[in-house]
Amino acid sequence: MNRYKEISSLQNPLIKKVLVLKDKSRERKKTGEFILEGLREFQLALKANYDIKTVFFNEAILSSDQLEKIIPLDHGELEVIKVSKDVYQKIAYRETTEGIIALVKSKSHLLSDLKFKNKNPLILVADATEKPGNLGAILRTADAARLDAVLIVNPKGDLYNPNIIRSSVGCIFTNAIATGSTEEVIAFLKENKIFIYCAALTASENYSKIDYTKASAIVVGTESTGLPIEWLESSTQNIIIPMEGEIDSMNVSVSAAIIIFEAKRQRAM
Amino acid sequence: MNRYKEISSLQNPLIKKVLVLKDKSRERKKTGEFILEGLREFQLALKANYDIKTVFFNEAILSSDQLEKIIPLDHGELEVIKVSKDVYQKIAYRETTEGIIALVKSKSHLLSDLKFKNKNPLILVADATEKPGNLGAILRTADAARLDAVLIVNPKGDLYNPNIIRSSVGCIFTNAIATGSTEEVIAFLKENKIFIYCAALTASENYSKIDYTKASAIVVGTESTGLPIEWLESSTQNIIIPMEGEIDSMNVSVSAAIIIFEAKRQRAM
Repeated sequence: MNRYKEISSLQNPLIKKVLVLKDKSRERKKTGEFILEGLREFQLALKANYDIKTVFFNEAILSSDQLEKIIPLDHGELEVIKVSKDVYQKIAYRETTEGIIALVKSKSHLLSDLKFKNKNPLILVADATEKPGNLGAILRTADAARLDAVLIVNPKGDLYNPNIIRSSVGCIFTNAIATGSTEEVIAFLKENKIFIYCAALTASENYSKIDYTKASAIVVGTESTGLPIEWLESSTQNIIIPMEGEIDSMNVSVSAAIIIFEAKRQRAM
Repeated sequence: MNRYKEISSLQNPLIKKVLVLKDKSRERKKTGEFILEGLREFQLALKANYDIKTVFFNEAILSSDQLEKIIPLDHGELEVIKVSKDVYQKIAYRETTEGIIALVKSKSHLLSDLKFKNKNPLILVADATEKPGNLGAILRTADAARLDAVLIVNPKGDLYNPNIIRSSVGCIFTNAIATGSTEEVIAFLKENKIFIYCAALTASENYSKIDYTKASAIVVGTESTGLPIEWLESSTQNIIIPMEGEIDSMNVSVSAAIIIFEAKRQRAM
């Protein structure tokens, strides 16, 4: 007896919906839904209480037994669908994949929803980070450092871009993330009495001379244009990672990590 | 009067050679030549005394006047060739390109050629880094920190992969780089009395507790398998970046940067 609905046609409306959600940021924003892929990503989203609507699995890669071990019994609303190899290959975006894809409801990521357990939160602010891979790497570092929040300012497209989910190795789900405009995020930080440290190539203060043990936000901009003037004028202190090479720049996710882990080092002392 | 040889045929043997060198690591190794693209890359290679054989430029993007400003007058052996738009688009690998491509002689990157000006050199060792993008990011960080050397152990393919050149933003040329097997590099470090600090998820010593002001090599492995046992058994101390998140890993170029800049911070005190 087969307990699962099966889909083997690429013309199935639900499969078409998955394909559109995978490709179109606009569609993800409109419907408030997105697609994730992979076992780890699925488990992290589940743990983070994302509302998972539909799971698609391909039995040649992931058996029903394996699937049932990772899907909680009390997840009443969740629909599980077995898809054919053709359908799976069409809706999967990875080369080495794990047989599981899910249609999930987005979260809203409002600044007003953020709650800090830590009296002196450590926050990363990323303003207009251009590349999904860089944002993914930043989220991975933020997870490792267990930051209190990651504030994504003026995100390009939406957060549930498959390349962000993939490059963050699922850390899009593990971090407390909020989005807003430059003005909104500056206002939020000031209201919450959080010190603002903006990384800028024009700054004179060495990042390692700052005391990050108080409530602190580390702000990074884009590699090409840096931070908007509003940030530099609103900061507690603009900071610089001293560079001594031929090329006066580092990858933005690398710069963010260097400052974050200096803050962590100080807080562990 | 036109001073430059012109090529407008994709069938030209030199153009065919460029295409093969761009794509095939084996061919680059066999001939000891490689292809670079972009103004900054060209200038950095020139500054690093690379032997540039041939420059190809497309006048629609880079004018002869601009070109002549960047090519030194005393560069006698260098051949300059004007190529048509079709040819240029075929041999360029970037979308936003700068009108200049060059055929360049590789360097040998022997451990025995390394000379340290610094009595207490700071070195990064990357063992079997899988992705060109990660190696490129590591080289970019190494340039910013002005490391005394980057030792690349068991490189996958050759160093002059277009993706490495591109992701390093030309820092493949600005760093002192040597390659070797695990055994060769360990022997080199021991002969030169350089302390060895291996980053490993199994280590117990916090990376920030180490004194990096003496001659030090920071060793990083792959994200998937870490470092071979030979490294862990040869090290002065195995070290760990404490991680507190759901995902017990960071991007290898990020981990390397965190430790390198902790070493730099100590050395600046």
